[in-house]
Amino acid sequence: MQIEDLKKKTKMMSSHQTNILPHNAESYPATKEFLMKVVDILLDYIKATNDRNAKVLDFRHPSEMIRLLDLEIPDTGLTLQQLLIDCSTTLKYQVRTGHPHFFNQLSCGLDLVSMAGEWLTATANTNMFTYEIAPVFILMENVVLQKMRELIGWNCGDSILAPGGSISNLYAFLAARHKMFPSYKERGLSSIGGQLVMFTSDQCHYSVKSCAAVCGLGTDNCVMVPSDERGRIIPSKLEELILERKAKGHIPFFVNATAGTTVIGAFDSIPEIADICKKYKLWLHIDAAWGGGLLLSRKYRHPRLTGIERADSVTWNPHKLMGTLLQCSTIHFKQDGLLISCNQMSAEYLFMTDKLYDVQYDTGDKVIQCGRHNDIFKLWLQWRAKGTEGFEKHMDRLMELTEYMVRRIKQMPDRYYLILEPEMVNVCFWYLPTRVRNMPHGPEREKILGEICPILKGRMMQAGTLMVGYQPDDRRPNFFRNIISSAAVTEADVDFLLAEMDRLGHDL
Amino acid sequence: MQIEDLKKKTKMMSSHQTNILPHNAESYPATKEFLMKVVDILLDYIKATNDRNAKVLDFRHPSEMIRLLDLEIPDTGLTLQQLLIDCSTTLKYQVRTGHPHFFNQLSCGLDLVSMAGEWLTATANTNMFTYEIAPVFILMENVVLQKMRELIGWNCGDSILAPGGSISNLYAFLAARHKMFPSYKERGLSSIGGQLVMFTSDQCHYSVKSCAAVCGLGTDNCVMVPSDERGRIIPSKLEELILERKAKGHIPFFVNATAGTTVIGAFDSIPEIADICKKYKLWLHIDAAWGGGLLLSRKYRHPRLTGIERADSVTWNPHKLMGTLLQCSTIHFKQDGLLISCNQMSAEYLFMTDKLYDVQYDTGDKVIQCGRHNDIFKLWLQWRAKGTEGFEKHMDRLMELTEYMVRRIKQMPDRYYLILEPEMVNVCFWYLPTRVRNMPHGPEREKILGEICPILKGRMMQAGTLMVGYQPDDRRPNFFRNIISSAAVTEADVDFLLAEMDRLGHDL
Repeated sequence: MQIEDLKKKTKMMSSHQTNILPHNAESYPATKEFLMKVVDILLDYIKATNDRNAKVLDFRHPSEMIRLLDLEIPDTGLTLQQLLIDCSTTLKYQVRTGHPHFFNQLSCGLDLVSMAGEWLTATANTNMFTYEIAPVFILMENVVLQKMRELIGWNCGDSILAPGGSISNLYAFLAARHKMFPSYKERGLSSIGGQLVMFTSDQCHYSVKSCAAVCGLGTDNCVMVPSDERGRIIPSKLEELILERKAKGHIPFFVNATAGTTVIGAFDSIPEIADICKKYKLWLHIDAAWGGGLLLSRKYRHPRLTGIERADSVTWNPHKLMGTLLQCSTIHFKQDGLLISCNQMSAEYLFMTDKLYDVQYDTGDKVIQCGRHNDIFKLWLQWRAKGTEGFEKHMDRLMELTEYMVRRIKQMPDRYYLILEPEMVNVCFWYLPTRVRNMPHGPEREKILGEICPILKGRMMQAGTLMVGYQPDDRRPNFFRNIISSAAVTEADVDFLLAEMDRLGHDL
Repeated sequence: MQIEDLKKKTKMMSSHQTNILPHNAESYPATKEFLMKVVDILLDYIKATNDRNAKVLDFRHPSEMIRLLDLEIPDTGLTLQQLLIDCSTTLKYQVRTGHPHFFNQLSCGLDLVSMAGEWLTATANTNMFTYEIAPVFILMENVVLQKMRELIGWNCGDSILAPGGSISNLYAFLAARHKMFPSYKERGLSSIGGQLVMFTSDQCHYSVKSCAAVCGLGTDNCVMVPSDERGRIIPSKLEELILERKAKGHIPFFVNATAGTTVIGAFDSIPEIADICKKYKLWLHIDAAWGGGLLLSRKYRHPRLTGIERADSVTWNPHKLMGTLLQCSTIHFKQDGLLISCNQMSAEYLFMTDKLYDVQYDTGDKVIQCGRHNDIFKLWLQWRAKGTEGFEKHMDRLMELTEYMVRRIKQMPDRYYLILEPEMVNVCFWYLPTRVRNMPHGPEREKILGEICPILKGRMMQAGTLMVGYQPDDRRPNFFRNIISSAAVTEADVDFLLAEMDRLGHDL
C-alpha cells in the first residue's frame, strides 16, 4: 500500500488508540480493521522483500534520514491513520534483510513460518519464567532443546535460550566457574586465592573476551591463542600457553573452541582441544553460535564438528544458519543441574515451590535474566514445518551455493581473488578493479584492494542493489566476506552479486 | 476459528513451507493466504482475551498437557494446514495475560498498538548493532531514550535497551565498576587489591545480588540492608553497614535503591540515599524497572521518585507499567561515553570505522550482547499512539483503580485483610475464609491464611476465571499480591476479582 493511499480520508483519520481494544470492549470491529491494515503493510513489505527487481535498501545518511522522518514523541496521541503511515514509512527506509541480494550478516533471510511464529509470540505476550504463565511454550522449550542436545550427541544435560550468542557464552563461563570453584558464587575471587585464566583463539567472537571483563578476570587473563592461516587455533600453542600461565601460578580453567568463526568461518579442531582440556582438567566450551547449524547435515557435519559431544557446553544460534527469526540463541550443558545451581538466587518470593503443579518446569531460577522473551515458538513452528530433513536440505543447499560461488570466483581470476577455500558459507575475497588486474598479487596490491572495500560497499548501498560485508583481519587489510545463509538465494543471485560488484566497482 | 474448521479440506492440506515464499518466487498468493489464516487465529485470540465471559486459562498439569499436545519434532515437514492447527492449539492452552482478570504479573495486558509494532518488528527481522542494517530503528532508539532521560531529569547522558531489567542492572554494575576502577576491565580484581562491596535493600530484586555472583564479588559482598515495615531501605542502617565494611578494609562502591519493589511496591527514599552516596563517593543506581512508569505522572511521581535525577544510572522497564510488549527494558546513564568505554572489545572486524556513514550511530560496541533484538519499535509506536499525556492518564488510571481496590477491601473487613497501604499498584492482602473470620488477627491466623494461598490460587487456575499472585516475604507467610498494570481493567473487574476469590475460597 502506498503512503498516499494511507493518507486518504477514512474513519481512522479521527480514531485513536482509545477507540480500539482493550480500551473499549465494544470495539472489536475497529480493532480488527486497524490490525488488518497493518497486515496489509507487512504483506507489501514481504512481497517487496522477495522481489528481485525491488531494491535491498534506500540508503540515506543519518542527518538526511532525521529530516525525512517524523520520529517525534508527541504530547498528544496521534490518530490510527498516522500510525499506519508511520509503519509504512518505517519499512520504506528499512534494509530488507530477507532480500535475495542481502549477503551482509550471519543472519539473513526472512523465513515466513518463523515470522508467523513471532507474530503469534507477540500476541501471546508472555514471559518464560514459569509454567504457570507459559505452559505450552515451556514444554516446547523442553522438546526442542532436548532434540538439539541429541544432535550434539548427548542423551542428558540441560539447556536454556538466551538473548544472543554473547549471553550464551557468558552462561557457559559462569557454569564452568561455578562447577570448578563452587565457593566463587558466595565468596568471590577471594575464596580461591589465585588468578583464573581462560583461553580462546585470536579468531574467536569478541564476546568470549568480554566474559573476562564482565566477570572480573580482566581481559589480560583471557589468553588469545594464535591461529593458523586457515583461522584455526594452533593446539600446540594452546598447550604452551596453558603451561606458561600455570608456571606463573595462575589457574587455567576454561577453553573456548570456535565452530565457525565470524569472519572466515573456521572450525577449531575439537578432538585435539578436547584432549588438552582432558589432560589439564579444563572446561571445554564450543562456541558454535554460527557453525552449529551444520550439525543438521550428515554431509557437512564431519569433520567440522567431529568431537563436539566431548564439550562441557555448546552455544548454538538457530537465528543464524537455521534462519529462525531474531533472536534465537541456545546454550547447552552436558551436566544437568548446573544452570540452576549456578544461577539461582533463591528468590522464593518469585519462584515458589508450593504451587499447584510440578515446579521443576519453571525456568526462572536457572537464568540471569529473570524474565525471558519467548524465543521458542518461532523455532518450534519452523522445525515442525521443515522437519529435521528440511533443515538438512537447507544446510546442504547453503553449502552447495557457497561451492558454486567459489567456482564462479575461480572462473574469473581477473576480477576476483579468493582469499581462502571456505569451510562454511563465509566466502572471503577481494574484488579486482580494472587498474589492478595486471599488478602482481602482494602487499602493495592488497593495500589498494583493502582501500576500495569501503568505497565499493558505499556504492552498493547508494545503488541499493546489493549488500555484502567487509572487514580487515590480523593478516590482511579490508576484504569482502559474503554470507549465504538465506533460503531465498539461488545460483542466479550469486551470479547477480558477482556481476553487480563488477558493474559498480570496475573503475575504482 | 475452531480447530475443526482448520481441519477441513483445503489446498493447505497438501501444501508445505516449500510452497510459499521465499522458496518459490511465484508463490506470493499462497504465502498471503497462509499468513492471513494465521492472522485470523490471532484475531480470535485477541477477541477472546478481551471477552470477560471467556476464561483466563484452561489449566492442565504438565503431564496432562504433554498428552494433549503434539509437540514432536518430525523428521519430515508437516503441512501448512497442520501448522495452523498447531498455532490454534498453542493459543487454546496459553494463559491470556491480556485478559481483564489476569492480575498475576508486573507485566499484564495486551496493548494492541504495541503488538502491531511487534508484528512489524518480526517482519523487518533485523539486528540493532549498526545503523547500516537498522537505520530507522537506531534513530528511534535515540529519540525515545533521550525522551526517557529527560523524564528522569537529565539533559545529557547515554542509554541502551537490554533484554530485561536484570541485564539492565548488570549494565549499571559494570559501568560503575569501570568508572571507579578503570583498570578492572583489563587486569581484573588483582589490579585493585581489595574487596569490592555493593549495597542494596533486603527487598530488592534478586538480580542485584546476582550481579555480585556473575561479576566475581561473591554474593557475600552484596550487603542486604534491612528495610522498614513499609519495605523501604533504612538509610541509617545503610550508612552503618558501609562504615562496617570500610572498617574491614573493604571497598564500598555501589548502592542500589529500588523504586518500586517487586512484592510490595515500595520506594526507597532516594534523597537520603543520594546524600550517603555523595558523602562516601559511591555510585547510585536506581532500579526503577517497576516504578519508573510513574515518572510519567505529575500526580504520583512525587514523592516516590523525587531525587531520581541525582542517580548515576536508572533501570526502567516500559514492558511493565507502561504496558509495552515483552521485552522492553532500558538502562540510562547520566554520563555519556561510559557504556562504550566499559563494554567495547575493539571488535574492529565487526564495527568498522571506515564506513559510508557517521558510525557514531552504531551501538554494537556499547553492549555486552553483540546482536540485539529490536525492542524499540513497539515502544515508539505505542508512544506515538498514546502521546506523553496518554501515558500520564494510563498511570493515573492504574493508581486510581488501585485506590478503588483498597477502598473495596476496607469495606469488607470480614473477608479481606489489607497488609499495608500501597505506594504503587501492588495490593498485598489476605483473603479470609469463613472459619477464620472470628479469629483475632495474629501469628496463628496468619499461618492459616498463608497456607490457604496456594490452595485458593490452585482453585483460581482450575476454575480458569482469575489469576492473582501470592508469595511469602521476610515478615510473613504467603499472602496475595494483586497487580493492576493492564489498561483492560475497570472497577467492575476489581469487583469481580474480590467476589470471585470469595466464591472460590470461602469454605477453605
